[in-house]
Amino acid sequence: MATVLNFENHSVIDGDWFREVNLDWDGYSICLQVEEVLFHEKSQYQDILVFKSKSYGNVLVLNGIIQCTERDEFTYQEMITHIPMNLHPNPQRVLVVGGGDGGVVREILKYDSVKEVVLCEIDQMVIDVCRKHLPRMAGSLDDPRVNIQVGDGVEYVRNHPGAFDIVITDAPDPEGAAEALFQKNFYQDLKSALKSRRHCQLSRCVCATTFTHIPFILDMATQCKEVFPRVGYATGNTPTYATGILGYLLASSIPDIDFTKPIRRLSDEDLKRMDLKYYNSDIHTASFVLPNYARDALKHVIDT
Amino acid sequence: MATVLNFENHSVIDGDWFREVNLDWDGYSICLQVEEVLFHEKSQYQDILVFKSKSYGNVLVLNGIIQCTERDEFTYQEMITHIPMNLHPNPQRVLVVGGGDGGVVREILKYDSVKEVVLCEIDQMVIDVCRKHLPRMAGSLDDPRVNIQVGDGVEYVRNHPGAFDIVITDAPDPEGAAEALFQKNFYQDLKSALKSRRHCQLSRCVCATTFTHIPFILDMATQCKEVFPRVGYATGNTPTYATGILGYLLASSIPDIDFTKPIRRLSDEDLKRMDLKYYNSDIHTASFVLPNYARDALKHVIDT
Repeated sequence: MATVLNFENHSVIDGDWFREVNLDWDGYSICLQVEEVLFHEKSQYQDILVFKSKSYGNVLVLNGIIQCTERDEFTYQEMITHIPMNLHPNPQRVLVVGGGDGGVVREILKYDSVKEVVLCEIDQMVIDVCRKHLPRMAGSLDDPRVNIQVGDGVEYVRNHPGAFDIVITDAPDPEGAAEALFQKNFYQDLKSALKSRRHCQLSRCVCATTFTHIPFILDMATQCKEVFPRVGYATGNTPTYATGILGYLLASSIPDIDFTKPIRRLSDEDLKRMDLKYYNSDIHTASFVLPNYARDALKHVIDT
Repeated sequence: MATVLNFENHSVIDGDWFREVNLDWDGYSICLQVEEVLFHEKSQYQDILVFKSKSYGNVLVLNGIIQCTERDEFTYQEMITHIPMNLHPNPQRVLVVGGGDGGVVREILKYDSVKEVVLCEIDQMVIDVCRKHLPRMAGSLDDPRVNIQVGDGVEYVRNHPGAFDIVITDAPDPEGAAEALFQKNFYQDLKSALKSRRHCQLSRCVCATTFTHIPFILDMATQCKEVFPRVGYATGNTPTYATGILGYLLASSIPDIDFTKPIRRLSDEDLKRMDLKYYNSDIHTASFVLPNYARDALKHVIDT
């Protein structure tokens, strides 16, 4: 390739390298070498790119920002899912807001207790593209326990009070369509959407990292804390996200929940049967331990 | 800037972006935006570049590979130093092999028990350049407790049996001058260089990450384990290293040492007085917890 393809956020494919330029990470970017562009179109909501990379498998890029690669997607799909799942004794109905790639759904389906997973993704094109180019993730969407709702997650949540044991928000950064997913009203609706029992959790992926976005995380956690009595923050390593680390915000209606202690410890046999490559019960606990710079900044809001 | 500057390992400055291309991380690279090249010369041993970046402060690059940035250097300088320091009840004499930037020395000097730090760096030019352009690290080299030896670390270690409480190897990847620092003979000499008491540790930074270099880490840990009865492996987040994570190999002559439990817990007051921004006693323990893919691969060699 000799052409330069320009994407949102100033990301480019120049020669055979994709360079992610995200103004949120000023002066820093990750590059992946491109073997072939498999798909590039603008949907009603966003710019969708899928390319085959030289060493990270197929890569999904939304609005110029890497969402997942086949090689390291397991790191965050497992963390965003198995932390809340193992804080609940009997998760039966789980809602995923966003997450049209199907990776989170795949992880949720590994629990026999699960009777229904609702995936509420706003963009049909993301689902279609992932079914074609990221089948190891989107293959999960064919499971009979999965109920796909193409539509606005904010509205869906508002219209389903008391319906879910766990809600996982797997959405991109707060711009465009996803902006409403980061507002206090949404947290209030989420709280209502959770069953009115003691065991309900919310988990969300936070692309903003402690290293670069403490004020953003603090603001998000503060809004969440105004609605939920307990809020936790964990981190894990995902190589193709800026700074190599992703954050996970947890919230619960249970006033004395200890997010750091899974109520179900997975045995080595469980890990093998569930094909878990990242999450284990020790990682669960360790992921809540933060370096001083983050711990000190978040200590008044975070309960972990 | 419009020129393209080419460095070892195919790294380049193209326009105003430095792109690290390291064949060890095939198809992946980190870019930092450049404001000004402050220094670029070939020493007797390596290609040395320092540039002022847009958002990570001054950056030291050896043979095309980012060694440290002013913004995130604390993450690894603290981890490589304070883990072994807090496994020793009374560290008095510490050897640093490599580490000419002075960052590790700065961290070691934070302990009142320390009487002497020997820095054995092969490349005088690295020391000179860091004194000028990375003074927050290299300023430590003026401390009267510091003894700078410009020379071959392998030889220095061989010639100083029984001299040190702790040895920290802070060297680049095993190529060129640093190759001998990754061979079994070196581990044997290191073991001899440690005092013949019960409390002696070796700590080394491992740029190869679990995500990409399991065979390399396994080989290194195996060689180390043939010499030392106990070997441990910890990780920590450093944004400007490939994949965002760095590994730390620990070794000890103490057959029943538990690397995961610091024998000295630092209070909040200690952390403040020592200006620690990353390391704390909980991070110490948590850093030894590995994701399944790494834990399973290393479990027969690693004692943590």
